[in-house]
Amino acid sequence: MPAKSPVIVDLRFHPEQVREGLKHAFPGREVINRADPQHADRDLSGIDYAVLWKPLDDLFTRATDLKVLFSGGAGVDHVLTLPGLPNLPLVRFVDHTLTTRMSEWIVMQCLMHLRQHLAYDRQQHKKIWNALNQPEAAELTVGMMGMGVLGSDAARKLKVMGFNVLGWSRSGRPVEGIEMYSESGLDEFLSKTDILVGLLPLTADTANIFDAKLFAKLRKHGPLGGPVFINAGRGGSQVEADLAEALKTGVLKGASLDVFQIEPLPDTSPFWTLSNVILTPHSAADSDVSALFAYVEKQIDRFERGEPMENLVARDAGY
Amino acid sequence: MPAKSPVIVDLRFHPEQVREGLKHAFPGREVINRADPQHADRDLSGIDYAVLWKPLDDLFTRATDLKVLFSGGAGVDHVLTLPGLPNLPLVRFVDHTLTTRMSEWIVMQCLMHLRQHLAYDRQQHKKIWNALNQPEAAELTVGMMGMGVLGSDAARKLKVMGFNVLGWSRSGRPVEGIEMYSESGLDEFLSKTDILVGLLPLTADTANIFDAKLFAKLRKHGPLGGPVFINAGRGGSQVEADLAEALKTGVLKGASLDVFQIEPLPDTSPFWTLSNVILTPHSAADSDVSALFAYVEKQIDRFERGEPMENLVARDAGY
Ligand SMILES: NC(=O)c1ccc[n+]([C@@H]2O[C@H](COP(=O)([O-])OP(=O)(O)OC[C@H]3O[C@@H](n4cnc5c(N)ncnc54)[C@H](OP(=O)(O)O)[C@@H]3O)[C@@H](O)[C@H]2O)c1
Ligand SMILES: NC(=O)c1ccc[n+]([C@@H]2O[C@H](COP(=O)([O-])OP(=O)(O)OC[C@H]3O[C@@H](n4cnc5c(N)ncnc54)[C@H](OP(=O)(O)O)[C@@H]3O)[C@@H](O)[C@H]2O)c1
Repeated sequence: MPAKSPVIVDLRFHPEQVREGLKHAFPGREVINRADPQHADRDLSGIDYAVLWKPLDDLFTRATDLKVLFSGGAGVDHVLTLPGLPNLPLVRFVDHTLTTRMSEWIVMQCLMHLRQHLAYDRQQHKKIWNALNQPEAAELTVGMMGMGVLGSDAARKLKVMGFNVLGWSRSGRPVEGIEMYSESGLDEFLSKTDILVGLLPLTADTANIFDAKLFAKLRKHGPLGGPVFINAGRGGSQVEADLAEALKTGVLKGASLDVFQIEPLPDTSPFWTLSNVILTPHSAADSDVSALFAYVEKQIDRFERGEPMENLVARDAGY
Repeated sequence: MPAKSPVIVDLRFHPEQVREGLKHAFPGREVINRADPQHADRDLSGIDYAVLWKPLDDLFTRATDLKVLFSGGAGVDHVLTLPGLPNLPLVRFVDHTLTTRMSEWIVMQCLMHLRQHLAYDRQQHKKIWNALNQPEAAELTVGMMGMGVLGSDAARKLKVMGFNVLGWSRSGRPVEGIEMYSESGLDEFLSKTDILVGLLPLTADTANIFDAKLFAKLRKHGPLGGPVFINAGRGGSQVEADLAEALKTGVLKGASLDVFQIEPLPDTSPFWTLSNVILTPHSAADSDVSALFAYVEKQIDRFERGEPMENLVARDAGY
């Protein structure tokens, strides 16, 4: 049996976490962790696999014999735009813990807007004891844009919590228990939506999709007094000038944002200080590195046994 | 057929909401809303039913022929301590919307502690972009004290969100899918609990149950760095000096409190300003007055048909 191909690990994650995660990963295989200076001059030719997230510039010029690329995250926009990207199968990361973490974040944000957390927080700071008029989840409709692995799980859990949930996706593919809309149904979908959740990949079609025109189509007179926007997909999908304006003028009642056009978010961004915005630093669903390496191992096994790998990216669609 | 008995409504709720809720309530029956001055001198003898929440002082001296009492809320501690309370069947309020509202609040609070909302909020105010080390729900155990109508529903939903959930109740009565503990198992239950949720009625046995000794028994080195206390049962169950101390010294990492020994919470209470406390003004699950009246109507129908009423309070147990 020929020796197993090494794996190149080229991840701009927390270096300590990567090192920790590699301790028990890829048994029987050499691992070239490009965050380690000792590998700086390593010959990368003849190596079949690379796991990458914002890789070093010279990856593709030096690793010229790669057979499969593995994205370190669920999204692949950052891979598909890399200069010199070879035309190879690209597998994205799909993982139970990533999915449940994302649903934790989405459900929490929907509940915080439903339960008027920001208003109660202001009252607490002023020592004001005052119960607000409180709609319940069943009076609101959450519209989920992007009903893939993440959107479907979050949608199901929002239903358990009592929300009405509508889904929107390119295909409008049925999702059990959820009323689905496809591209042509967008306006109707928006007109029924009180809380809009973005869980879309960033592609040519979804870039700048969340703009002033779209916000204006959301349901206006819902029980929260205005629509809410939540985005945990990609910042490139939101027109940030429009979003800030909508939040200032009341077109949007509030927002929860985990992703931004530029990350880390610049100090000058209005989102840091807008009183109706809840902001997290692209941490809605971090990839667990141990889970990532176990997943890549599994896909390599499938590949080497001649079985189809899972979660292959469709290059033309961009996700 | 004899005329139907009137119903006395003696509720210290928002007067407008009660008036609105009464518009279509109790068809064919006279309603004596004691918040209306026009009824001030009304003879209350010969009336069978009263719906009450903090009733006027003279209710029981004037309404001497009552047959059934209906609590305006899910809890009945406020009824059982009324001076001159006659020994009559007491029905408490159980309602789907009340239950789901409580679960919204509980799940939101558990998620906010899990997802380190207070720390992210502080970072947002300082414009700090920094992803925190993030355990997932499956790494934490929520211990629910009180597994009645409200506790069971919240427990089920917390499980869907990925948390481990343990339940504790007087009887330890089985609840599907939840590992249950009864009174004698309290210490073991506490030693496994990272997030303690109180959904107990206030009775002689549960008064002051949440004290320094109990907090010290919670799991210490869990993934959040310390245990969290959430209370939406009754404030009378918590020893507030102990609770404030535990929050200051780090015995507790944080708390979410909806109920207090004295309500409205006095300005001098430390809970307003402790940076690790999330506070709401006894609004975790408001009674919906329309639902309340529909429920009382249904119970009166059962009573008049000779069928057993639902959710009768056991006087000796106090809930
Ligand atoms: N914030 C974070 O921490 C974080 C973490 C992980 C992932 N993410 C983001 O979340 C995204 C979604 O992840 P996933 O695993 O759920 O992806 P997925 O399974 O590929 O699902 C993508 C969904 O978006 C829909 N979609 C794609 N292009 C569309 C278009 N032009 N119009 C309408 N719908 C379109 C797809 O429609 P079809 O069903 O018709 O194909 C599908 O429902 C990732 O791409 C990534 O950017 C963020
Ligand atoms: N904050 C708010 O807005 C709000 C709103 C509504 C209600 N509440 C409070 O929530 C409480 C619970 O409501 P619920 O409808 O769930 O009540 P419930 O159905 O009567 O359930 C009470 C639970 O507490 C347990 N319990 C009672 N005494 C106990 C003791 N001494 N030791 C251990 N367990 C004990 C019972 O055990 P068994 O199962 O063995 O009987 C039962 O599991 C109400 O009493 C009320 O005070 C608060």
